[in-house]
Amino acid sequence: MKKRYKITLEYLGTNFKGWQKQKTSISLQETFEKAARNFFLEDVKTFVAGRTDSGVHAAGQVLHLDSTKNIPKEKILLGINFHLLNEPLGDQMAIKKVVIVNRKFNARFSAKKKIYQYIILNDYIRSPLISNISWMEKKELNLKKMRLASSFFLGKHDFSSFRSKGCQSSSPVKTIDNILITRKNKLIKINFFAKSFLYNQVRIMVGTLRDVGLGKKQPEDINYIIKKRDRSFAGVTAPSKGLSLLKVQYK
Amino acid sequence: MKKRYKITLEYLGTNFKGWQKQKTSISLQETFEKAARNFFLEDVKTFVAGRTDSGVHAAGQVLHLDSTKNIPKEKILLGINFHLLNEPLGDQMAIKKVVIVNRKFNARFSAKKKIYQYIILNDYIRSPLISNISWMEKKELNLKKMRLASSFFLGKHDFSSFRSKGCQSSSPVKTIDNILITRKNKLIKINFFAKSFLYNQVRIMVGTLRDVGLGKKQPEDINYIIKKRDRSFAGVTAPSKGLSLLKVQYK
Repeated sequence: MKKRYKITLEYLGTNFKGWQKQKTSISLQETFEKAARNFFLEDVKTFVAGRTDSGVHAAGQVLHLDSTKNIPKEKILLGINFHLLNEPLGDQMAIKKVVIVNRKFNARFSAKKKIYQYIILNDYIRSPLISNISWMEKKELNLKKMRLASSFFLGKHDFSSFRSKGCQSSSPVKTIDNILITRKNKLIKINFFAKSFLYNQVRIMVGTLRDVGLGKKQPEDINYIIKKRDRSFAGVTAPSKGLSLLKVQYK
Repeated sequence: MKKRYKITLEYLGTNFKGWQKQKTSISLQETFEKAARNFFLEDVKTFVAGRTDSGVHAAGQVLHLDSTKNIPKEKILLGINFHLLNEPLGDQMAIKKVVIVNRKFNARFSAKKKIYQYIILNDYIRSPLISNISWMEKKELNLKKMRLASSFFLGKHDFSSFRSKGCQSSSPVKTIDNILITRKNKLIKINFFAKSFLYNQVRIMVGTLRDVGLGKKQPEDINYIIKKRDRSFAGVTAPSKGLSLLKVQYK
């Protein structure tokens, strides 16, 4: 009888070509599955809560996998983390938690909420200590306007204007539960809460909120952009390096 | 008439072979001086507050340099930061501030106080998001004991037990003004305040404080180790990646 394990991961996405397996470059999935295979001594297939793009980080990505081996969860954590160190870039990834779950649990479909965080460095001088986890905006952003703008995203909408080509979601309708924007010195953190997002949705929302912060767009324009259901009306796709998957919540 | 400029720098030390010019690898000094030369269009010599080792970071390193050019400080900041981007690793370094100072100002000798910060990740699971700016200690550290131990370092002492071979300081006597140890979740931050330090002094103090935190040494042993004036009695030299020069204070 196979056991199902729920695994929480932290990673620095900078040097990986995203979650999904690639033919020519190192992906998070391949790196993790190789280490897991070397630990379990059997083939391992992972199912992740949300595939992250090249350069996107995670403090709390979640996946599930099945194994015929019945191994204490603490041994799995230490064992796979050890085997990761034998993979290229494997030290830039670590299991933070392992839980044995019901076979009905699915990392993607059982997720109730995901929290993504986007970090903007709002300064005209770059900051090398945080450059690989933030997007730099030189001109001062108006947070009050950005907060007002973000309120138009809340609730259930057709987010066609906020998804990239290649989005495989069958429906463009998503529900945003909350958006929190905070500032500490030069750092602006924007947290997005939803059950799920469209492809690049968070990054396009960030690019659009930046336009509002710069005064290029007005907060009310968000409403209009949503209604247009046309990607060309929204702002740029903010770079991946500022984005992190903070947490995936389950029942 | 030459102008003297005081320049504050931030850098991620991970990929540099320390401050000082090297023959075979990329140093912070060489990188900075090349960019400065390309900006001022004349030879530039820098004098730094404290040379940092390979892997050590800085949020507020300070240097001074002289130039025959009389250029507004804001232009110097933007100009050198721009030219840094043309150097290998130059994006991992940035000027944060430029001030025109009296010709008597010397970045090293005028410094009244330096603040170094050492970060320990006190967890048995590694954290890829911060692994290049912290040292990981798996066993739980006793902060109360570490704080008591740190009090023995305060004041004026012969720190021969806490300097590495190759230390060029003429005297082993230094005065530690303060040491602050704080913890937030799994992160322990230790701030050291002094006019100046011996070579590797902060890192050896950290290695020794860790021994106290682990119970391998008692807080009072610090007194004994100082008195021995023998490097072999102190703890290991903590790795450079956990260390940052936070600030240099002047009158």
